[in-house]
Amino acid sequence: MTALGNPAHLLPPSWKTQITGWLAEDAPSFDYAGYVVGEGERTATLLAKSPGVLAGRPFFDEVFAQTGCRVTWHVAEGSALPATPSAATPAACATVTGPVRGILLGERVALNALARCSGIASASASLLARLRAAGWPGVLAGTRKTTPGFRLVEKYGLLVGGADPHRMDLSAMVMLKDNHVWSRGGRIADAVAAARAAAGFSAKVEVEVRSEAEADAAVAAGADVVMLDNFAAGEVAAVAAALKARWAGGGGHVDIISTSSIHQGVRHVDFSLKLDH
Amino acid sequence: MTALGNPAHLLPPSWKTQITGWLAEDAPSFDYAGYVVGEGERTATLLAKSPGVLAGRPFFDEVFAQTGCRVTWHVAEGSALPATPSAATPAACATVTGPVRGILLGERVALNALARCSGIASASASLLARLRAAGWPGVLAGTRKTTPGFRLVEKYGLLVGGADPHRMDLSAMVMLKDNHVWSRGGRIADAVAAARAAAGFSAKVEVEVRSEAEADAAVAAGADVVMLDNFAAGEVAAVAAALKARWAGGGGHVDIISTSSIHQGVRHVDFSLKLDH
Amino acid sequence: MTALGNPAHLLPPSWKTQITGWLAEDAPSFDYAGYVVGEGERTATLLAKSPGVLAGRPFFDEVFAQTGCRVTWHVAEGSALPATPSAATPAACATVTGPVRGILLGERVALNALARCSGIASASASLLARLRAAGWPGVLAGTRKTTPGFRLVEKYGLLVGGADPHRMDLSAMVMLKDNHVWSRGGRIADAVAAARAAAGFSAKVEVEVRSEAEADAAVAAGADVVMLDNFAAGEVAAVAAALKARWAGGGGHVDIISTSSIHQGVRHVDFSLKLDH
Amino acid sequence: MTALGNPAHLLPPSWKTQITGWLAEDAPSFDYAGYVVGEGERTATLLAKSPGVLAGRPFFDEVFAQTGCRVTWHVAEGSALPATPSAATPAACATVTGPVRGILLGERVALNALARCSGIASASASLLARLRAAGWPGVLAGTRKTTPGFRLVEKYGLLVGGADPHRMDLSAMVMLKDNHVWSRGGRIADAVAAARAAAGFSAKVEVEVRSEAEADAAVAAGADVVMLDNFAAGEVAAVAAALKARWAGGGGHVDIISTSSIHQGVRHVDFSLKLDH
Amino acid sequence: MTALGNPAHLLPPSWKTQITGWLAEDAPSFDYAGYVVGEGERTATLLAKSPGVLAGRPFFDEVFAQTGCRVTWHVAEGSALPATPSAATPAACATVTGPVRGILLGERVALNALARCSGIASASASLLARLRAAGWPGVLAGTRKTTPGFRLVEKYGLLVGGADPHRMDLSAMVMLKDNHVWSRGGRIADAVAAARAAAGFSAKVEVEVRSEAEADAAVAAGADVVMLDNFAAGEVAAVAAALKARWAGGGGHVDIISTSSIHQGVRHVDFSLKLDH
Amino acid sequence: MTALGNPAHLLPPSWKTQITGWLAEDAPSFDYAGYVVGEGERTATLLAKSPGVLAGRPFFDEVFAQTGCRVTWHVAEGSALPATPSAATPAACATVTGPVRGILLGERVALNALARCSGIASASASLLARLRAAGWPGVLAGTRKTTPGFRLVEKYGLLVGGADPHRMDLSAMVMLKDNHVWSRGGRIADAVAAARAAAGFSAKVEVEVRSEAEADAAVAAGADVVMLDNFAAGEVAAVAAALKARWAGGGGHVDIISTSSIHQGVRHVDFSLKLDH
Repeated sequence: MTALGNPAHLLPPSWKTQITGWLAEDAPSFDYAGYVVGEGERTATLLAKSPGVLAGRPFFDEVFAQTGCRVTWHVAEGSALPATPSAATPAACATVTGPVRGILLGERVALNALARCSGIASASASLLARLRAAGWPGVLAGTRKTTPGFRLVEKYGLLVGGADPHRMDLSAMVMLKDNHVWSRGGRIADAVAAARAAAGFSAKVEVEVRSEAEADAAVAAGADVVMLDNFAAGEVAAVAAALKARWAGGGGHVDIISTSSIHQGVRHVDFSLKLDH
Repeated sequence: MTALGNPAHLLPPSWKTQITGWLAEDAPSFDYAGYVVGEGERTATLLAKSPGVLAGRPFFDEVFAQTGCRVTWHVAEGSALPATPSAATPAACATVTGPVRGILLGERVALNALARCSGIASASASLLARLRAAGWPGVLAGTRKTTPGFRLVEKYGLLVGGADPHRMDLSAMVMLKDNHVWSRGGRIADAVAAARAAAGFSAKVEVEVRSEAEADAAVAAGADVVMLDNFAAGEVAAVAAALKARWAGGGGHVDIISTSSIHQGVRHVDFSLKLDH
Repeated sequence: MTALGNPAHLLPPSWKTQITGWLAEDAPSFDYAGYVVGEGERTATLLAKSPGVLAGRPFFDEVFAQTGCRVTWHVAEGSALPATPSAATPAACATVTGPVRGILLGERVALNALARCSGIASASASLLARLRAAGWPGVLAGTRKTTPGFRLVEKYGLLVGGADPHRMDLSAMVMLKDNHVWSRGGRIADAVAAARAAAGFSAKVEVEVRSEAEADAAVAAGADVVMLDNFAAGEVAAVAAALKARWAGGGGHVDIISTSSIHQGVRHVDFSLKLDH
Repeated sequence: MTALGNPAHLLPPSWKTQITGWLAEDAPSFDYAGYVVGEGERTATLLAKSPGVLAGRPFFDEVFAQTGCRVTWHVAEGSALPATPSAATPAACATVTGPVRGILLGERVALNALARCSGIASASASLLARLRAAGWPGVLAGTRKTTPGFRLVEKYGLLVGGADPHRMDLSAMVMLKDNHVWSRGGRIADAVAAARAAAGFSAKVEVEVRSEAEADAAVAAGADVVMLDNFAAGEVAAVAAALKARWAGGGGHVDIISTSSIHQGVRHVDFSLKLDH
Repeated sequence: MTALGNPAHLLPPSWKTQITGWLAEDAPSFDYAGYVVGEGERTATLLAKSPGVLAGRPFFDEVFAQTGCRVTWHVAEGSALPATPSAATPAACATVTGPVRGILLGERVALNALARCSGIASASASLLARLRAAGWPGVLAGTRKTTPGFRLVEKYGLLVGGADPHRMDLSAMVMLKDNHVWSRGGRIADAVAAARAAAGFSAKVEVEVRSEAEADAAVAAGADVVMLDNFAAGEVAAVAAALKARWAGGGGHVDIISTSSIHQGVRHVDFSLKLDH
Repeated sequence: MTALGNPAHLLPPSWKTQITGWLAEDAPSFDYAGYVVGEGERTATLLAKSPGVLAGRPFFDEVFAQTGCRVTWHVAEGSALPATPSAATPAACATVTGPVRGILLGERVALNALARCSGIASASASLLARLRAAGWPGVLAGTRKTTPGFRLVEKYGLLVGGADPHRMDLSAMVMLKDNHVWSRGGRIADAVAAARAAAGFSAKVEVEVRSEAEADAAVAAGADVVMLDNFAAGEVAAVAAALKARWAGGGGHVDIISTSSIHQGVRHVDFSLKLDH
């Protein structure tokens, strides 16, 4: 999905204040270890100790920039880690250079971000590969089930892994679920009309439906996207095809699969940082 | 571990600004869905759909307090979720009451925090139970491998699950690893002396060692805690016993096991919120 | 446009920290006048001194909530100010009650927000009325040409005045202008494909075009919205009709007019606050 | 008014965090367009498309500094835009150089600030010229009727346009209006005495009066500045002369005219930014 | 100096975020002691253990408000502490009521603010009393030599102690010292003219001079205040009288004494908080 | 105490945002004096005018870095100021170079921090020297009685002066006083057990006791540190010796003296900054 550009270019400069907050969380007052090691110039090697897809270079870079260090990468963002690394045979991914207390001060924060971001990219790429192998050409998308305060990194990981981040937040797209429709009075058309009145033409309106009849109502009301929620595996393709035949003048299959299984509670990729001797 | 008090009492009021940040992340500008549903008073039920230990009530409460709602709990913090819930047979855990747009605005943020916090408590309690079943009476501790910006919640989950949070940050305890000792010149005694000079008598100094000889050096230098890093499973107990015999005047076993496996990349507990009809 | 709900319900609680910032800007240290007047309970009347549409009640309310006062409104949000007010014959719009120093502390900040928000709603409603009178049934939309740091209020004013706020920010919709297309290599299709790759299915992609051929290219590439930029007044309807005939299977007219003239540099509505004697 | 120095030197470094906030408002999460265009080095030309006085260079510069670009100016701060520019015959004012995504990311924010700041300087300079042409030598001053959160830029625009910014905020000068005097018990002398007690000798006390008798009371009480509010145009000069004769031992005219008409709801200057091909 | 009103009314609501910062500084993550003591309702008594003037009640109140407690005062702000308290015979000043963990969480922060604020009020009142006893009727003023980040409290203490806070910051008054005059080219008149051009009519311009000739130059240039810096004790009165005779048409003495000795490095007042049994 | 490293290495980058706050406090809007003096490059000399120990160089450096200047030091951090300086015979300590408005903008903020930090280091070094002269080899420690919002600087000053900072905050160590024990039910053992349950093995637990029996109870309960509070001078050594004989298998003396007298209400060191002509 990021073959058409550099995902780092998605990040405006304003997110860098988040990194300052991460560093403050890990060192709210004195950095005693910094006193122990001082500021001699050193290099350190980033090692991958489990397989996966590398994701999160911009976050790793910025942590170290803020501690006065610089990073040289040996693996491309979004590529599989080389040679199926393990704890016994780790793969060198990058070199960090700078004052030793800067390296150690940034180490844990940078690794924590990279490990989780790469874990999400890995899970996304893995499921996408299986879907492609099964012949399905559609879009694999995430959800809003992210760690509070850390969504930008997790959505970025989805993108690098080939998944669609789906909506970033409540302000970027309207999604109407049964709770919304029921609160509005029960008619899908009324809920869609109200959503359009507030969100205007520039935001998409997505409706989560539980039956083919609800799907018809949503399309008729002008929904941009219809999500078939909790349909049986066999049923969903048939319903999608029927809807497309009826509304889009043609057959076809499900366009998008949206699942939190590619980012919530996924395994991290195991990285460590080792000072070069 | 929290049998002696209420873990919610660990949280000073200043952390509540974090919650404001979570809500801002999920609704940076307009809440279109809020316009759709309005402010009629409603109740909603928090349902657990997978088993585990409940943890994170204060965070869930505060999210909804900030959206104008209140929460009544049916399950105690730190207790196992009742009746082994599943998606098919969910367990009712709490009732949320307030204006419907407040319920829906807080829903995702509150669930995301609760799901991850409970996942960590569950993994902690589970491993602790297995260690106790094996007859080991020591302390199970976490690490600093947490999600950047979200550490308070994750350390809280460890505590509720019966684990020791280990140090909160670089300012709360000094841990000297091989990188520190090497940067200081290679002698453990020098690194410990420098750490003590900066951290004073009020912070503990922990030293990570890779051999029994290093452990002896650390204890001799005045380290408060010695961590045996990456020893073989069979070797660690023997080394611990030898060290204790030599330094503490008695035999014994390993006191503490510290592992990120109880919080990094663990499964979440699956919760949802359903408006009552 | 807000006939389907209450626009105040678009505002999540997190925006209230903006109001705290406004008050801090106007009183960075001591409030000398507060010392002069004290905290006796008083009421004050909000007077409109020029005609227009009232917009901005939630901002006005929150300013005074933060200074310990409460507001009772006599005019509905989005309605025309009663009786064509002027400086000589002002219209009473609301009553503010609270400690007198709270009333005077919030006065200027609350009026400044209300005056500008109402000015935008008034300009929007006025142009929309003229377009409707001319028989045009489409959407009138604003732009991103807003006052830095104050966009939420200005977009809210557009909505209350019946206009479409258009995209809130760079993260909520992708708009490709000539600068983007040219930077990407010159082909509209390439730019649209890259935008879709990053933004996914949940954000709309809008393309600003300068010719019918460019419009065709944009639609063919999958753009959700095509904006005809700087076409001659007579030409734009014909081009729109041709595009619709060719791509949407039917005739028709321009759907949306987007202009900054309804919010940038518009006249404010003149309000004042008078203590009741 | 700024002939004696560089107005950019009025800005302490701490205001730059405001700019970070502006950029975050316009790109709260991903910058999709940045992904489309990438980071190739480009130049762009700032074009003025309507006449006026240029004001706001430091804000424009800082926006682009934060997006990694630099600006070269062709027009001096505070000077009239060259050759009466229009949309058809725009005037080149500056060149922006940097990575193309940085140029496009800063474009709208920088233009929004410059357009409003220049609009205020233009309105100020224009009214001042008319007053000078009418032979009046006094000070033209603005008011506190500014856009919440954006006051620094607007007061700066007043200064560049030759106007006096008047007090920045409630903490920088005490102004006593009828509301204050009435709340204090009705006697101007009591209100002035209380203001002086709190504000001390370092802040000026200004009193807004509605009659010559009130003006006498204010001067007698030690007010530093007396403002004749809502006097008839013919009356004000006579009253000013009488007051000066009585209190300052000499004749004379009104010293200061304070009006929000030079900054609230004024027209902006129309600027655009065009990538150089 | 505060006989004309309540000094607490000088504080706008926006300063309360400072208190949140103080509490976060003292409890950046867990409050372990809060877990120990729980939330039983208790009362505690504020005891003064050294003599002085009480100052800082609003800060003390707000700290406890943020920890869920309330305060009842037994001593008026600005009054001398009763009965010359000592460590052996402390004086009860207030009662704090609330959950015991809230009392203990706010204790140290509230005491630290009160001790320093009261120390400044005490030093101010003491020197003022000595000056009055010596027959001098002028104004005693502080300086900008305050603790970074804590100025509001320290200026407040000056006011409560009867001193004039002098300018709050660089934006509230212009003070020209030898460094400024010299940097401007050496002529006082030029520096004053430039200051007036930027600061306008609403801010006072003060000039620090080292000779009678410089004082004359400053007055002639339109300075609002002239400060005789580092004159000999005997000389200063004579110079002041000569200046007043020459410029103000009458004799007289020094109007203002400005000194950091009443706030920088002064003794604190000793307070403690004792839970009632 | 800092002989083993550079105390500046204790400061992580995140504290620099505090400095931005200090500068904003001193210049909330315009810096009028900056307009007067402009940006010509100048040097200035930091002069010490009273004796003491220099402390606070990193804070001084960062203030000027943020105003665009750089500092060259002539005196080492932690060393006694040369030649017993006085107002008449000041000692040159550093040279500040940069644009003159940057020098004057940072001047007061930088001096305020340095004066207080050096005052604390001086008081600490002075008392420590007297204790050493009396033959006592233990640790001299400070307390949490610091200026709200300024603790980092004050604890740093303690360290530079040779004192132990003692715990930074409530999250870094548990200290149980009579209030805590009483609130927990009155038994020291219960309070210590609860503290250990929450704080785990990584934070020390300190108990403040008022009798030898309480001290025994605290040690028996597992306290890491016992503080003898308000014992008579003669008694404390005897009690310490008895406790050590009983619990540590040997005699000895008091290990630590903790007192706020070395930082609360201490004299500052007098510094000024003089532009070089």
